[in-house]
Amino acid sequence: MIRIIGIDPGLRRTGWGIVDSDGVRLCHVAAGVITPPTDDDLAYRLRALFEGITSVIKCFLPQEAAVEETFVNDNPRSTLKLGQARGTVLLAPAMLGLRIAEYTPNLIKKSITGTGHAEKQQMQAMIGFLLPKATVGSADEADALAIAITHANHRSSRTLAIAGAQKTVRA
Amino acid sequence: MIRIIGIDPGLRRTGWGIVDSDGVRLCHVAAGVITPPTDDDLAYRLRALFEGITSVIKCFLPQEAAVEETFVNDNPRSTLKLGQARGTVLLAPAMLGLRIAEYTPNLIKKSITGTGHAEKQQMQAMIGFLLPKATVGSADEADALAIAITHANHRSSRTLAIAGAQKTVRA
Repeated sequence: MIRIIGIDPGLRRTGWGIVDSDGVRLCHVAAGVITPPTDDDLAYRLRALFEGITSVIKCFLPQEAAVEETFVNDNPRSTLKLGQARGTVLLAPAMLGLRIAEYTPNLIKKSITGTGHAEKQQMQAMIGFLLPKATVGSADEADALAIAITHANHRSSRTLAIAGAQKTVRA
Repeated sequence: MIRIIGIDPGLRRTGWGIVDSDGVRLCHVAAGVITPPTDDDLAYRLRALFEGITSVIKCFLPQEAAVEETFVNDNPRSTLKLGQARGTVLLAPAMLGLRIAEYTPNLIKKSITGTGHAEKQQMQAMIGFLLPKATVGSADEADALAIAITHANHRSSRTLAIAGAQKTVRA
């Protein structure tokens, strides 16, 4: 049995979702959204995001983390903002020694629905089917759970970033 | 007397420089470069960067931090990488409750040389003139010291991001 946290990073809204997987069955544990105060200075918004993710990990104790590989769009300002949030989101599990994997949006969609070009509604419906106990309140939570499920399906065939985690165990 | 850390963020090389300022005179304290291992996983490279900046702040105890506002270029992949490093670099002083200011590259160049389009060599020469005790080993250190000096010159006329810092003091 492995516990996985999936994270969908964003400066305004970062979705997180936690599932247990024994290789065959999936079980929903929890999901939520972190919304740093928008009127704060950027560095302190990032701090709120970091502390939010850290609290969730310390509460539910997942062993592995999966983060969406950010879509690089044509607006450099948005890409920079997303990069800043994404760096913070990757740092939180790394500081706690978790193994971390990254997945592209297309792979996540394909893993959940069978097609890399699924719509948001299709994704949410499949999350409801795969995790019947989950009451998914928002698209951010659904996306985060989708990332966690993708990792549950791919983790055995993936080389995880264990070098850093091992360092932490030794420290 | 105020102690300031200037930081020039980058995933491969992050320059830092510390100066003391009493409003008129400047005094060089220290400067260096943090180079996270390039063969590690991204999240663990960001962790090395975060731990590096945190150690420097805990060692030299600056009260305020100044970070360069990243130039948003036309390569989205580079912008994303820089964003991830920048988020990590902003987070470190925020976690320790420092006041943080951001300055554009043009303002930094103008503040040091009088022109917003100064060359790297011209910048380094001026840093040597302004901080005669500094033995600046690299362009990253010179840039970081330039950011710290810019903040020393502009801090009184700028509204700092004190909201988060005050929160920390209360915590």
